[in-house]
Amino acid sequence: MRIALDGMGGDKAPVVEVAGAIDAARDLRGCEIILVGDEDALKNEPSKYKPCPANITIRHATEVVTMSDAATSPIRRKKDSSISVCVDMVKNKEADAMVSAGNTGAVVCAAVYTLGLLPGVERPGIAIVFPTLKGPAMILDVGANIDPKPNHLLQYGLMADAYAKRILGKPNPTIGLLNVGEEVTKGTDFVKETHKLLSESRVNFIGNVEGRDIYAGKSDVIVCDGFVGNVVLKVSESVAFTMFEFLKRELKGSFMARLGVFLGKSAFKAFRKKMDYAEYGGAPLLGINGVVIISHGSSNQKAIKNAIRVASEFKDRGVNEEILQEIEKWRR
Amino acid sequence: MRIALDGMGGDKAPVVEVAGAIDAARDLRGCEIILVGDEDALKNEPSKYKPCPANITIRHATEVVTMSDAATSPIRRKKDSSISVCVDMVKNKEADAMVSAGNTGAVVCAAVYTLGLLPGVERPGIAIVFPTLKGPAMILDVGANIDPKPNHLLQYGLMADAYAKRILGKPNPTIGLLNVGEEVTKGTDFVKETHKLLSESRVNFIGNVEGRDIYAGKSDVIVCDGFVGNVVLKVSESVAFTMFEFLKRELKGSFMARLGVFLGKSAFKAFRKKMDYAEYGGAPLLGINGVVIISHGSSNQKAIKNAIRVASEFKDRGVNEEILQEIEKWRR
Repeated sequence: MRIALDGMGGDKAPVVEVAGAIDAARDLRGCEIILVGDEDALKNEPSKYKPCPANITIRHATEVVTMSDAATSPIRRKKDSSISVCVDMVKNKEADAMVSAGNTGAVVCAAVYTLGLLPGVERPGIAIVFPTLKGPAMILDVGANIDPKPNHLLQYGLMADAYAKRILGKPNPTIGLLNVGEEVTKGTDFVKETHKLLSESRVNFIGNVEGRDIYAGKSDVIVCDGFVGNVVLKVSESVAFTMFEFLKRELKGSFMARLGVFLGKSAFKAFRKKMDYAEYGGAPLLGINGVVIISHGSSNQKAIKNAIRVASEFKDRGVNEEILQEIEKWRR
Repeated sequence: MRIALDGMGGDKAPVVEVAGAIDAARDLRGCEIILVGDEDALKNEPSKYKPCPANITIRHATEVVTMSDAATSPIRRKKDSSISVCVDMVKNKEADAMVSAGNTGAVVCAAVYTLGLLPGVERPGIAIVFPTLKGPAMILDVGANIDPKPNHLLQYGLMADAYAKRILGKPNPTIGLLNVGEEVTKGTDFVKETHKLLSESRVNFIGNVEGRDIYAGKSDVIVCDGFVGNVVLKVSESVAFTMFEFLKRELKGSFMARLGVFLGKSAFKAFRKKMDYAEYGGAPLLGINGVVIISHGSSNQKAIKNAIRVASEFKDRGVNEEILQEIEKWRR
């Protein structure tokens, strides 16, 4: 198992990429991790961790796609960027999977252009796994396709079904459609048409779910358009952050409150861990003819390590083979 | 100031409606509150609170619109419902404003049909005021108009500007457009067209805001379509609830943690109060030729009381007059 890691991707690159790669290399002995990016920048980092695991190598790439670059830059102006090289390595079978915390639009664009879509898939979708009161669930699309057709959402349902089966260990995952109400009559024409397609499909479709059902764990999978999914993701992070900020402000006022938090520290820690995005690692880009895992731009060392684990599981457990079967069954 | 309160609206009607009305009647001495609904059911409730304030009266309505009734029921099959009677009272100048925690779609439909829109307004919008790290802000639309045109969102910007000036005390409120990225090039065609219209308007438009900016308080007003706004609202409630649930579960495990929370109780209380939906009361239905405040179906006594306060302020401070001026200026 060889995993190409974009060493220049995130906000804190290459520091957290290198540290995360080293953690992953120690955990996943059977994996070879190829750090892709500016050789000089990358070479200095691993020397901090002695001994550097032998299953880490470096591949030079002369350019870096920044957050402000156009999505098309890895296939047009920056063809030797770390993103382009990672994608090329997957294309040329030099890597079995890739991970990047870089410009999401650029990763999606390079993956679609260079690797192509799985046969029968019309659009790729980014899926996020998150904690609910009933265990992990997943939502897609969170931003690859902001103006989709009902048919694309149906395919997201099929692909998420495959992912949940192979990765989340759910033999018959429940699929919900994000809407403004539970009733079939609710929503826009787009959502109503999607509801019809999912009802007629073979997935375990439980109907509409509302914003409030997402974290209650009403369904294992939530399907929505990439605009709404992107907003859901960012709002959720924001509410969690804001609640902590409000709490911190309140706690400043009182010695007893501070003492209370000191005593409750272990519970707080366990709780934050549960809500921690990094625990769940990267987001799979589903529908691509290859394994591409996208990490949050603000990923830390743990998030990078877990994204590499997700990439290795995705390949190992044959998620794309399962997706192909689902798409094939649906076309018949 | 006479305020018609739908006594049969919320999940816990009429108990919380009556209790909230009595609290409001005691706080707002200059207000007359007219409880609308089944006379027998309503009469028994106030007798629990002795003496019942003299500025509360009861108006009989024979029917109740339920949550599963069609939005059109108050204007078609249930014309003597508590919602219909409240709206009629505003229409006939027997009340200066109304408050309902009932079926939102039915309230919007009855208000538009019976009271009509303010001259020049094309669609009504439901606005929610919520806490941010920089003080209260508002978001609209959260569900009145799930498939709007760019022009409707422009008008939401104008109406929110008027509301924020008169009610939130912001002389020059900043307006943001909810999008998947900050750059002008981001988003669907619908969002890009809306961006153009808002840029050309007289409001203090600061451009696109993302999901993560909402609770950070980046803008005083956030404009979005009713589908996305509804999801944002429900997801936010859900994240906050889920965080508390996770925390409670964690805290069960440890005596020290429980002791910690006991000591930190006052901080927790102050914090929950800040995040408490009820503190902000009802949501104004903007654009209606009359004052209509919509409360959450799960409103408690405090939420009803605060919704009545919001209704009284809306009328008192001339929000509709300000909206008319903004629309007039924009049409010139």
